[in-house]
Amino acid sequence: MDLKKEITKRTTEIDAVIESFFPEEEDYANTVREAMKYSIAGGGKRLRPMLMLETYRLFDGEGEGVEYFMAAIEMIHTYSLIHDDLPCMDDDEYRRGRKTTHTVYGEAMAVLAGDGLLNYAAETALGALDSDLDASRVGRAMRVLFNKSGVNGMLGGQVADIEAEDKAAGEVDDELIEYIHTHKTAALIEAAMMIGGILAGADTIQVNTLEKIAHNVGVAFQIQDDILDITGSFEELGKPIGSDERNHKVTYVSLHGLDKAKADVEELSKEAIMLLHTFNNDNPFLEELLLSMIDRKK
Amino acid sequence: MDLKKEITKRTTEIDAVIESFFPEEEDYANTVREAMKYSIAGGGKRLRPMLMLETYRLFDGEGEGVEYFMAAIEMIHTYSLIHDDLPCMDDDEYRRGRKTTHTVYGEAMAVLAGDGLLNYAAETALGALDSDLDASRVGRAMRVLFNKSGVNGMLGGQVADIEAEDKAAGEVDDELIEYIHTHKTAALIEAAMMIGGILAGADTIQVNTLEKIAHNVGVAFQIQDDILDITGSFEELGKPIGSDERNHKVTYVSLHGLDKAKADVEELSKEAIMLLHTFNNDNPFLEELLLSMIDRKK
Repeated sequence: MDLKKEITKRTTEIDAVIESFFPEEEDYANTVREAMKYSIAGGGKRLRPMLMLETYRLFDGEGEGVEYFMAAIEMIHTYSLIHDDLPCMDDDEYRRGRKTTHTVYGEAMAVLAGDGLLNYAAETALGALDSDLDASRVGRAMRVLFNKSGVNGMLGGQVADIEAEDKAAGEVDDELIEYIHTHKTAALIEAAMMIGGILAGADTIQVNTLEKIAHNVGVAFQIQDDILDITGSFEELGKPIGSDERNHKVTYVSLHGLDKAKADVEELSKEAIMLLHTFNNDNPFLEELLLSMIDRKK
Repeated sequence: MDLKKEITKRTTEIDAVIESFFPEEEDYANTVREAMKYSIAGGGKRLRPMLMLETYRLFDGEGEGVEYFMAAIEMIHTYSLIHDDLPCMDDDEYRRGRKTTHTVYGEAMAVLAGDGLLNYAAETALGALDSDLDASRVGRAMRVLFNKSGVNGMLGGQVADIEAEDKAAGEVDDELIEYIHTHKTAALIEAAMMIGGILAGADTIQVNTLEKIAHNVGVAFQIQDDILDITGSFEELGKPIGSDERNHKVTYVSLHGLDKAKADVEELSKEAIMLLHTFNNDNPFLEELLLSMIDRKK
């Protein structure tokens, strides 16, 4: 399998799915609709919807109901990026080589575009009630989505990350770094795979296993991010290298060293694949995709 | 009926309901939980949950399922206030006599507290799936809630309001002012009454009538706000008088004059009460509450 080509193909397909869920223009309030579209069109690989779809396929899910949730999770991911980039947060002017939302539309509109996307994610997921999907599965999937994105999930991780910046380096321990990784990055990846399973009819034990697989991948992904911040190149990352160090940020690497970080990524990844093999079904693309997320150079 | 006393009593009851839905403290990310609680504790009369509950009672709704949605709608109202008050928006230091969220917790935490509340509103409403309520009613109620709060509802109105500020006075016409009033203020009041009806089992025609009643009340409420900005006192409003004028803001009053504004409030209110009387049931407290919202001095 030419993984890169296969990912590009599927990303294009997912782009079309996401676009199909977009709010139409109205007579008024179009600035925010534009800002929402601009932000979500910012692209990337669409990893979260892709993981959701491939997990859905792993459990023999059929039909288009899953697309509502694929679009919804990407809206949530995008809203979090818009707000992360704000001047009062990371104050980033560029993301993935494009101007950030507040740079183009101003701060007020960026706040509202983020709000609009989070709200629209709920509307979009609720649209799945019109699909062939069983309503109780839609309800369970929504509960996972908003639990993993909120104060006990992604948003909690974001807050802990900000709190950590205010601490002296000695106060940031392993437990806090793990909390941040687990919540800020892994939570939404967990949601993606769990929802793919839930919508396809996976049972509770299987959904718990999916959560564990995604957790490992998400944490490994974030540790890899810390590693790349030190070892990567500007070209590969699309952002300045060593920015964590310059910002005196405590990372997994600064706590444990590069070698242990790399070994842990390896171990988390092995366990994830081992768990994936416990299912009766298999999806070779999903397996390669998970490995590529962990091994990535950018 | 001593309306003021009755409202105070019910507000206290609703405060307790809202509090009961609050996320518990965890080991990390508590700053945002605190900021969320601080913001929602900011009080006010809890008009939206109160309207929801009283409409629920009007249609003989029983049980505690409605409470999930009462808490959820107040969370959404509160998140919108936090973000409205941000320096990049209205830049308000005080609201209802208390320091605004960003003044106390900083801008980043205020953005995240707003996000957290919007997200937690979805989680809270989804909790109603555990109650005695019929799951399909919960689904319909959620669709109304997020449709009315998002880009085609409250948030759209907020955006149009910002867009209007950038226009020359001559470009702000009646249609735009109506769009703003309908979306920014009325949408969430519509959601409150519609959801009360839906959860209690009102039929589609009844829910449409509730939407119309709430629409009139919401628009009248907003016109009254514009009137009070000119005629009220600081003590009554808790904010500086004439701020719209000083900001050169086009309002319903500046477009139509004080007399027409007052007459329209009267007419909208009459029609709302007339529609309320088309139902077989009645709820005298709800009727007085609606009238007091329109007639209010602050």
